[in-house]
Amino acid sequence: MADPLQPYNSPVHRVLQGLFDRHRECRDGNVATYIPELAKVDPEKFGICVATTDGYVYEVGDTRHPFTIQSISKPFVYGLALDDHGPETMARKVGVEPSGDAFNAISLGEEDGRPVNPMINAGAIATTGQIKSADAAARIAKILETFGLYAGRPLDIDMAVYESETRTGHRNRAIGHLLRNYDVLTDDPTPAVDVYFRQCSILVDCRDLAVMAATLANQGVNPATQQRAIRPEHVESVLSVMASCGMYDSSGGWIYEVGMPAKSGVGGGVLAVLPGQFGIGVFSPRLDTKGNSVRAIRVCADLSRAWQLHQFNPPYSAHSSLRHAYTAAEKHSTRSRRQQEVDCLWDQGRTIRVVEVQGALSLATTEPIVREILKGLAGLRSLIIDFRHVMGLNAAAAAILADLAGQLRENAVCVLFTGAAQLSEAARALVHRFGDAAAAEVFRFPSLDAGLEACEDALLRDVFAETEPRIRDVGEYEIAAGMAAEERAVFESLLTTRHFVRGEYIVRQGDEAHSLFLIAKGVVGVWTGLLVEDARRVASCSVGMMAGGMAFIDGQPRAATLLAEDDVECAVLERSDFDLLQQSHPAIYARILRNIAASLAAKLRLADMHLEVLSCRRG
Amino acid sequence: MADPLQPYNSPVHRVLQGLFDRHRECRDGNVATYIPELAKVDPEKFGICVATTDGYVYEVGDTRHPFTIQSISKPFVYGLALDDHGPETMARKVGVEPSGDAFNAISLGEEDGRPVNPMINAGAIATTGQIKSADAAARIAKILETFGLYAGRPLDIDMAVYESETRTGHRNRAIGHLLRNYDVLTDDPTPAVDVYFRQCSILVDCRDLAVMAATLANQGVNPATQQRAIRPEHVESVLSVMASCGMYDSSGGWIYEVGMPAKSGVGGGVLAVLPGQFGIGVFSPRLDTKGNSVRAIRVCADLSRAWQLHQFNPPYSAHSSLRHAYTAAEKHSTRSRRQQEVDCLWDQGRTIRVVEVQGALSLATTEPIVREILKGLAGLRSLIIDFRHVMGLNAAAAAILADLAGQLRENAVCVLFTGAAQLSEAARALVHRFGDAAAAEVFRFPSLDAGLEACEDALLRDVFAETEPRIRDVGEYEIAAGMAAEERAVFESLLTTRHFVRGEYIVRQGDEAHSLFLIAKGVVGVWTGLLVEDARRVASCSVGMMAGGMAFIDGQPRAATLLAEDDVECAVLERSDFDLLQQSHPAIYARILRNIAASLAAKLRLADMHLEVLSCRRG
Repeated sequence: MADPLQPYNSPVHRVLQGLFDRHRECRDGNVATYIPELAKVDPEKFGICVATTDGYVYEVGDTRHPFTIQSISKPFVYGLALDDHGPETMARKVGVEPSGDAFNAISLGEEDGRPVNPMINAGAIATTGQIKSADAAARIAKILETFGLYAGRPLDIDMAVYESETRTGHRNRAIGHLLRNYDVLTDDPTPAVDVYFRQCSILVDCRDLAVMAATLANQGVNPATQQRAIRPEHVESVLSVMASCGMYDSSGGWIYEVGMPAKSGVGGGVLAVLPGQFGIGVFSPRLDTKGNSVRAIRVCADLSRAWQLHQFNPPYSAHSSLRHAYTAAEKHSTRSRRQQEVDCLWDQGRTIRVVEVQGALSLATTEPIVREILKGLAGLRSLIIDFRHVMGLNAAAAAILADLAGQLRENAVCVLFTGAAQLSEAARALVHRFGDAAAAEVFRFPSLDAGLEACEDALLRDVFAETEPRIRDVGEYEIAAGMAAEERAVFESLLTTRHFVRGEYIVRQGDEAHSLFLIAKGVVGVWTGLLVEDARRVASCSVGMMAGGMAFIDGQPRAATLLAEDDVECAVLERSDFDLLQQSHPAIYARILRNIAASLAAKLRLADMHLEVLSCRRG
Repeated sequence: MADPLQPYNSPVHRVLQGLFDRHRECRDGNVATYIPELAKVDPEKFGICVATTDGYVYEVGDTRHPFTIQSISKPFVYGLALDDHGPETMARKVGVEPSGDAFNAISLGEEDGRPVNPMINAGAIATTGQIKSADAAARIAKILETFGLYAGRPLDIDMAVYESETRTGHRNRAIGHLLRNYDVLTDDPTPAVDVYFRQCSILVDCRDLAVMAATLANQGVNPATQQRAIRPEHVESVLSVMASCGMYDSSGGWIYEVGMPAKSGVGGGVLAVLPGQFGIGVFSPRLDTKGNSVRAIRVCADLSRAWQLHQFNPPYSAHSSLRHAYTAAEKHSTRSRRQQEVDCLWDQGRTIRVVEVQGALSLATTEPIVREILKGLAGLRSLIIDFRHVMGLNAAAAAILADLAGQLRENAVCVLFTGAAQLSEAARALVHRFGDAAAAEVFRFPSLDAGLEACEDALLRDVFAETEPRIRDVGEYEIAAGMAAEERAVFESLLTTRHFVRGEYIVRQGDEAHSLFLIAKGVVGVWTGLLVEDARRVASCSVGMMAGGMAFIDGQPRAATLLAEDDVECAVLERSDFDLLQQSHPAIYARILRNIAASLAAKLRLADMHLEVLSCRRG
């Protein structure tokens, strides 16, 4: 196999290769013989596969050698039966308790004849008999199709093994009739037992097992094809019976030693599932006395130890979901504002809180976020929860956040959920918990920066009681700071007034820079990205501020596009007029340069503050 | 109880309150009567507690009402026995397979008399008998002390219940003698059975159960006291027997329905553990026919459903550990450099890769990082892996990263692990895998920025073949760009030369700003933070660049401290001299202003680039 990772092998692959080398000489155990055809397998075959939940597969050894799935079919058919009937109906047909008995024991309930669990043959035959279909042919076709969804490729039946099973499967036929006797099976049991023989004879390889396991690890969606093989709510049920009953009568020891749901088959395969993490498939035909592949069990136990995979000893912590928490007094939006406004934000910005969250939000990872928010309710005007770095959000987390937001809104706190666009389904789950109108409000700003800007605007509107701020005298521009009256008059004579309607471009990124824009009215957005799909609003400027100063000063092409976000009025200074000032009014020229530099310094201080908050603080 | 979270209740608390209200009217089941003293309990008592792995406890109802721990003592004593003897010895005394039988069944192995698991009475008595101690009094004292570590407070025995157990415990005495018969107990069984009666009579409350469970959820460390109650490697063993055998003969159904390791006691308590997440304690004395508290089971089942706690359906994804990945061509260090150096970094910076990782690193979360790194090996000179946002790192993840780093180093790639200072233990695990000398190299830069700067320096040294760059002509300073020869002469006459030794302050944050520093030789670090412990290096400037321009221009106090990081030579421009230029040489004055503004613009472009990378990109 060509390794795309050359010249270095992946360290992950190297671990698997090491396990393969360690156990390849092991010849303990014997191949299954109770089905004559199974005895023909090459006992030396040995393969190890690990599939990730994003579709990558590590493979070592004979990972593409076909063998029959045997009992590993049982949990997948049980999942199909759950999809067909739901857990209540299935609970009446098959139990979920470990039997403590061997796989071919006829462990039926004394009164109702209900098999104790779906992993023993009796329970598996009872389960196969429940699959909804017109006839036996349709039933096995449905099973094959479902297994194909798990494996991500079409699968076939090994007819020689099937026929061998048919010839020797008397005990299983007896079980079928007993199940019919107790009305667990309600029709002729013969077709159900026949389908069971066929399902056990489905050909898979070691790689298929790993991918099928990864599909269960990935909540039922094949990570490579993205096709769903089982409804998500039934995955935990399938894994539960694998955990308690999957390894025959050594299931307790398996959970104790290896600590993950697994299933073995007498064909030599073992499949193990690390929910949310990996699927593991191992193939080696020699079996121990309980019917489990000797080398596969050792590989899984070693791998569990080496990779610390035991389910009950997870290394993750619930307390890494809080990315940043700060107030608008510590980090303003990227809006460039007049000094009195900036001063007001320093002074009162603590009434606006921002909580950036990250990772996968479950109850355990959301609870610390809620606790953090509840610590700082005094005087709170606005709360922004930013989801841009959230990879997933389950319903439990959504419910807690929706409840919190609802309570805060009742207490007149403005709550905004920003950065939630990528959350598709999960965001919809969240939205769903508000009324449509409330949801529209809470989600009205796609980006954190836009939300923060709006919260600042609301605060400033209250404090300054201005409905539509505008410049009425040239001296109010930051660029005119420190000019004497007669200097202001000269300066004003150089300015021309331009109007831009909402949505109009003022300058475009990459343009040559000839002009400086002083904003008399409205808000100017600063956008980077040459293409529409890359466009990102990196800052904005409001009344009194200058826009376009950087390129005006350093003569480089425009670093950003300026967009009128309202109807905007600007006073425009052309560089040719500005340059003439150097001779005619050197003091004014220098004053302007100094004020442009001061404006850049202010923006730099703002940027440094942002960097400080983004790169340094946590929690 | 005063709620510090007023005026809003925590939504987490509200869920628990809702469960309490839903089940408080339930009077199904009966209090235990087989021990006469137990029958005296008030059957109406009902409490629900959830303890987080960082030590916060949510409480609803009668959470401080004492009751006897009964069978919930079994897993904790089993853990103590594992600490005393290790798993191999204990495996010879007690099995780990579910029995399928009731709690008081005498399920002993046919040949060796070994109880099938430590959660049935026979297994628990066998376990108690293994605890190392001088005598029975020391043994129960040791058990009490251990339980106190779990609960975070000293615990006592209810002597009335103990005496009642003693008077009626004939079956348990019989078990003791059978165990003695098989040499599972090797001394007189009477003291072991007596200690068992006492351990069952330890008084706890519902809050204790939650905290004890949270201690298991927190890998054996009490989250409130930070004291260790059990060795971390035995936590998974204790939880495994709870998962397979903890709820008597409904353990399979419990894992299927509720999906977390748990233990119940006939005193009315149920304790459940969400590894890494929560501990749950519920108390309600009425029991079902299997000896499990009726209300507690319903609360746990409802809570598992409402909060999506089923262990085999975790909501987290393995693929959120990659915080940012970029090259030095996309984001430079904060070093301010001459244009030709900046151009070189744009051109060749892709040979320096930075991978910032986050969260808790296990094998599953580290594997995608390794895969990402392996994708970009072509032409790689330097790889920086930054751990500043990593909350934890287990040995499996460390092994994979160490292997990767070792291979890359063998292939002459410079590998740096930065931001690892906070990782204490885990970082030491990583360090350990290199030789001391290699580890010292890999970890030599505490911060990502310093590491990146060093990698850039190495690249630039190779490209420009300069060993000790310095300014030899005033025209080489960025501030003199565009000056004519005679202007440069005037400008140079204003400059004074100053030397600073390595480690000397050039200016301090908060100082009034009178001077601008032009760096002729050496590197100047820009540090913020008034106190030593807050100090953070936010940027640096090298030869040719100006330092201190922001405050020089806007007249505000110094925003940062400037520190000589080498022996530094500066040309210093005093503001008083600069101001005089306005009259004497307005063109030079304007040129300088313009160049200062351009320098600020360049720094602003750099800061914006950093912000773009930090706030926008992922993966």
